[in-house]
Amino acid sequence: MTFSRPSGRLPEQMREVGLLRNYTRHAEGSVLVSFGHTRVLCTATVENKVPGFLRGKGEGWVTAEYGMLPRSTHTRSDREASRGKQGGRTLEIQRLIGRTLRACVDRAALGERTITLDCDVLQADGGTRTAAITGAYVALVDAVNWLKSRNDIKRDPIHGAVAAVSVGIYRGVPVLDLDYAEDSDCDTDMNLVMNDGGGFIELQGTAEGHAFRRDELDALLALGEKGIGELFAAQRAALAG
Amino acid sequence: MTFSRPSGRLPEQMREVGLLRNYTRHAEGSVLVSFGHTRVLCTATVENKVPGFLRGKGEGWVTAEYGMLPRSTHTRSDREASRGKQGGRTLEIQRLIGRTLRACVDRAALGERTITLDCDVLQADGGTRTAAITGAYVALVDAVNWLKSRNDIKRDPIHGAVAAVSVGIYRGVPVLDLDYAEDSDCDTDMNLVMNDGGGFIELQGTAEGHAFRRDELDALLALGEKGIGELFAAQRAALAG
Amino acid sequence: MTFSRPSGRLPEQMREVGLLRNYTRHAEGSVLVSFGHTRVLCTATVENKVPGFLRGKGEGWVTAEYGMLPRSTHTRSDREASRGKQGGRTLEIQRLIGRTLRACVDRAALGERTITLDCDVLQADGGTRTAAITGAYVALVDAVNWLKSRNDIKRDPIHGAVAAVSVGIYRGVPVLDLDYAEDSDCDTDMNLVMNDGGGFIELQGTAEGHAFRRDELDALLALGEKGIGELFAAQRAALAG
Amino acid sequence: MTFSRPSGRLPEQMREVGLLRNYTRHAEGSVLVSFGHTRVLCTATVENKVPGFLRGKGEGWVTAEYGMLPRSTHTRSDREASRGKQGGRTLEIQRLIGRTLRACVDRAALGERTITLDCDVLQADGGTRTAAITGAYVALVDAVNWLKSRNDIKRDPIHGAVAAVSVGIYRGVPVLDLDYAEDSDCDTDMNLVMNDGGGFIELQGTAEGHAFRRDELDALLALGEKGIGELFAAQRAALAG
Amino acid sequence: MTFSRPSGRLPEQMREVGLLRNYTRHAEGSVLVSFGHTRVLCTATVENKVPGFLRGKGEGWVTAEYGMLPRSTHTRSDREASRGKQGGRTLEIQRLIGRTLRACVDRAALGERTITLDCDVLQADGGTRTAAITGAYVALVDAVNWLKSRNDIKRDPIHGAVAAVSVGIYRGVPVLDLDYAEDSDCDTDMNLVMNDGGGFIELQGTAEGHAFRRDELDALLALGEKGIGELFAAQRAALAG
Amino acid sequence: MTFSRPSGRLPEQMREVGLLRNYTRHAEGSVLVSFGHTRVLCTATVENKVPGFLRGKGEGWVTAEYGMLPRSTHTRSDREASRGKQGGRTLEIQRLIGRTLRACVDRAALGERTITLDCDVLQADGGTRTAAITGAYVALVDAVNWLKSRNDIKRDPIHGAVAAVSVGIYRGVPVLDLDYAEDSDCDTDMNLVMNDGGGFIELQGTAEGHAFRRDELDALLALGEKGIGELFAAQRAALAG
Repeated sequence: MTFSRPSGRLPEQMREVGLLRNYTRHAEGSVLVSFGHTRVLCTATVENKVPGFLRGKGEGWVTAEYGMLPRSTHTRSDREASRGKQGGRTLEIQRLIGRTLRACVDRAALGERTITLDCDVLQADGGTRTAAITGAYVALVDAVNWLKSRNDIKRDPIHGAVAAVSVGIYRGVPVLDLDYAEDSDCDTDMNLVMNDGGGFIELQGTAEGHAFRRDELDALLALGEKGIGELFAAQRAALAG
Repeated sequence: MTFSRPSGRLPEQMREVGLLRNYTRHAEGSVLVSFGHTRVLCTATVENKVPGFLRGKGEGWVTAEYGMLPRSTHTRSDREASRGKQGGRTLEIQRLIGRTLRACVDRAALGERTITLDCDVLQADGGTRTAAITGAYVALVDAVNWLKSRNDIKRDPIHGAVAAVSVGIYRGVPVLDLDYAEDSDCDTDMNLVMNDGGGFIELQGTAEGHAFRRDELDALLALGEKGIGELFAAQRAALAG
Repeated sequence: MTFSRPSGRLPEQMREVGLLRNYTRHAEGSVLVSFGHTRVLCTATVENKVPGFLRGKGEGWVTAEYGMLPRSTHTRSDREASRGKQGGRTLEIQRLIGRTLRACVDRAALGERTITLDCDVLQADGGTRTAAITGAYVALVDAVNWLKSRNDIKRDPIHGAVAAVSVGIYRGVPVLDLDYAEDSDCDTDMNLVMNDGGGFIELQGTAEGHAFRRDELDALLALGEKGIGELFAAQRAALAG
Repeated sequence: MTFSRPSGRLPEQMREVGLLRNYTRHAEGSVLVSFGHTRVLCTATVENKVPGFLRGKGEGWVTAEYGMLPRSTHTRSDREASRGKQGGRTLEIQRLIGRTLRACVDRAALGERTITLDCDVLQADGGTRTAAITGAYVALVDAVNWLKSRNDIKRDPIHGAVAAVSVGIYRGVPVLDLDYAEDSDCDTDMNLVMNDGGGFIELQGTAEGHAFRRDELDALLALGEKGIGELFAAQRAALAG
Repeated sequence: MTFSRPSGRLPEQMREVGLLRNYTRHAEGSVLVSFGHTRVLCTATVENKVPGFLRGKGEGWVTAEYGMLPRSTHTRSDREASRGKQGGRTLEIQRLIGRTLRACVDRAALGERTITLDCDVLQADGGTRTAAITGAYVALVDAVNWLKSRNDIKRDPIHGAVAAVSVGIYRGVPVLDLDYAEDSDCDTDMNLVMNDGGGFIELQGTAEGHAFRRDELDALLALGEKGIGELFAAQRAALAG
Repeated sequence: MTFSRPSGRLPEQMREVGLLRNYTRHAEGSVLVSFGHTRVLCTATVENKVPGFLRGKGEGWVTAEYGMLPRSTHTRSDREASRGKQGGRTLEIQRLIGRTLRACVDRAALGERTITLDCDVLQADGGTRTAAITGAYVALVDAVNWLKSRNDIKRDPIHGAVAAVSVGIYRGVPVLDLDYAEDSDCDTDMNLVMNDGGGFIELQGTAEGHAFRRDELDALLALGEKGIGELFAAQRAALAG
């Protein structure tokens, strides 16, 4: 019996990636990112204020919020605004997005401004957090370019690029960029966030079934590096477009 | 001096209307409705359960939830899920959407099912509630057709169509389908919901500036009836597509 | 068969209206309004502060809060303070009360003050929101008179009077001032808020059963204007008392 | 210098007490209790259900909820429903009311029913909790009489009467039934709840200023017993009326 | 048949009392208090700020918060942080702790500082609130000594000591310092808070079964005074240690 | 200049580890775990119920809740119960604890029971989540042993052991088991959860400063494996005790 992925992809094959800029009109940056059927709207908002703990320090802030539309998923989820609180998974993901994007920002060069990245999932098919990070980076760059075009900032606060991808062990085989069918039936699921200097910004691996061994980890890291390389190319192409 | 609308439209001219079906994959009905730059994603979800007060009565339920993405607007609004509650305006609008769509549904024919209409504003430029009602009707029909295609229901629970439009008095002139520039600077704002038999389902008029007179009301109703006629045509075209 | 209302009233007959001033001691205005068995305590509180968005602009604010005592109704409702949030109906009504009373206030003449109108339903029998608006107007005038008696304001910020009534189609007949028995069994329910110059401030009509036709709307508006005329007389009499 | 109370009352003199039954129409018991200017509306609601921990045990439950209208006080307090939670003082008082009234109820004789006592302060001038307990007792008896009149219960579940009063040390002198002027300026404040057999149900004394001595405690208890005797007489008179 | 307490103690016998200072490292005062198996961690935190109503008045504040670890009890209770609110019992107890400790503090001598006493129950066996008050007093003294050692305050803001104990009527016999087995099966439960001048700071007695008579009250007060005397000795010994 | 850790430890040296069983009386498992000055109370509660999504499936559940006492930290943090919600960090950690302990449990062998692990930080000095996992494992085993001693379960549901440790890059040097001084000033922070078969259950690495390279990751993994080996020995010793 030969191995096959539900989508027919090769183990090292990513889904088609889209990065559509200026998807909505009002935000300083607005990108619809798609990883296959997963579609996330990432907007970047610039505001001339910072959280209390930064006031008067001459530094800026970058933060993120994440949400899923109730019927972005196979079955409808409760609307978090209606339940009256954000769930643990939501908080975890939005903390991750904010933390990893701050890793490529010189907050002193940004000045006393906050850039908020809203990542809202319109359609979910696995990998919403990695798509969100990859798309939010592009929205962040657009918002910074908007600031530069107005001469609001002097130095470019962005150093390097940030992208993210998931890898996992599906039916014993390490695969790249899990979709929902794989994600809900895999042994190990890992999210990688890297910068374009080849450094790791965040690494989160979870054994859903059996604990994973060191050689499996190594294979996953190699796959992830390959996929993130393709994402950096896609980001550059989108920003050049 | 001659009167002109910010958009250059004639007083009785609606914005371009779009009703894009199957906009997302998972929902039983999914419509992206646009009234000019206003864009609302309306999904219809079918679930085999009803609220407690209807259990065991053989009747179904139709309800709605409404939300705006934080940066769908000119300046960013707080995310309601993060603030921990839905605001009064949100609750008011989602109650309106649910109530007016129930007006065209035979709940006994629907059987013990709930159809939830999620109306999420991707981009706001005035008239989000009227666009939501108009689009949610199409999503509702698609969800009912899905039930019929599975032979889950015998009789068609939908009787007649429902659409909505806003009218208002802008700089002294009654105009149809207010956009944001007009909405934030008008004397009177009225939302009309009608069925395709020419009956009124809901009428909500508010004097923002001076109180409006009876003759102004009559002019607004005439404009609204005209606009809703065009919306019924757009709905029919979309559903025939 | 002849038509009759549950209360025996004629279609164009309002319930007995009471406007009892100085019902409680501490508030700057305090009115117990009754429309038949519906009794609402309306208090007006003056505070020398304004919401954040008005600070430093030299303008005042008028706002309202609404609540029902848990057993003001036929069966007990949950206490909203105990459930931890105000329901959608409550928010909708208190927004309506605040908005319509602001329509008769010159906020610059009021100065940087807030007048809060608390409308608490002691006993409910239909029409609590229209009674609340009608009674809160009197409490508002008393609070303004209190400010004038202290020479805190120079110009009278109140221009014109505001009152509200409900109308509806009960068993096919347009009737004025619905009580609970009618309200829970009518086809169309409309709330009218007008000023004493004959202008409409707010118009909210809802088809509960069949959609209403234009001639029905016209009949309802005529009934409502008649009822509101009587309410203005009652307000004047109370304020003269 | 001679001692005098702000109200001119003698130290052992209660304020005028009113117990107005059938104050509102819908509740099974409805009493407006007044201790001088303090006015509390106490309604009793009977429901054929019990909390989860009592289900199937053949016993009933008696519970209470307490609230103050925002402008029942000298300056306006936030509406708890709007703030989204009941404060500590509110919870403390409603727990006290429920607990002390359960002390006179045979819950087996009540059967699987809940009687909820809603105590809402319309006007506050000190002593709202003691007025609430005293008035809620009468509302409770009325609700039980309603059950008896329908033959829903066989045995009378009420044994004995319950009433409450405050006592305190004001400017060095023990006084009965503190009003707001005294309450906000006294050294010791004590609430007594007793039954008509002369037993103590609850005793809560707090030193606001200097700690109180045993002889002061004895004087306070004597004053309290006197006042509660008068309240039992008022309750009997009201119930006989 | 002779009377015996579940623990074998004599009616007038307290449980073993422990007051372990410096139980944790970070707080300015940290005391593990034990009354038998009841163990409460009391920490005192000094902060250079006061609540809004005290700002600029040159006075300090002392406040308390109380919590039970979910499995400090025989069966697990919900975590209040997870339920999203503190229960009525919690609020009642933390208000009691704060109020009674403020009774021994000269807030002007404290200066514009807040001392927060966190009382967290690690293990519950009855009497957690009286243990908390008794232990929090020692933590408060340690925090004040820390301020004195830094020369932050000139005068000692503590006047006198405060301690608390419960008394009750168990199977007809007045007993001192109820443990859980007694507390859950007693007729009357009373908490006494006193200062070391012999004055009462707070007295809270509740009849759980039959109402208690005056002679029973007198016996309980005598027992309580005895127990509190022992607690003052234990506090002095701990502070001398 | 030579490298030194704030604590004087060698890079590969863990803090002293303590695992004190039966720390409190009521819980089925109760362990005070200490990693140096970090002290976490881990209790295991067994309840004969499962969450809704597992009802009737014959499987059990293991879950965790995490909290920090307000003054477990250097400066006082808000009490989450008082703020009304658990923060994102708290939710993230308790999800991690529950998920990683489920990795060593055969839920079918557990039967329809829930074991809840409450991890409450009494004193924090870095590494609270890794200490919590390591200690909660021992509490879990004690709870399972309690079930076995009562013959409530037939097969042992625990397969293998689970422990966790942090590693990080502090001033350029990979170090094991970061304390607070290191944690707040390190470039990379990684938490490792492993089983005693040498498999990874969870891996979470975050670059706080510069992104980490692959060789740094390898060094961190080696250090972590060493530390976790020592933790397994400590767990075995404690359980044998």
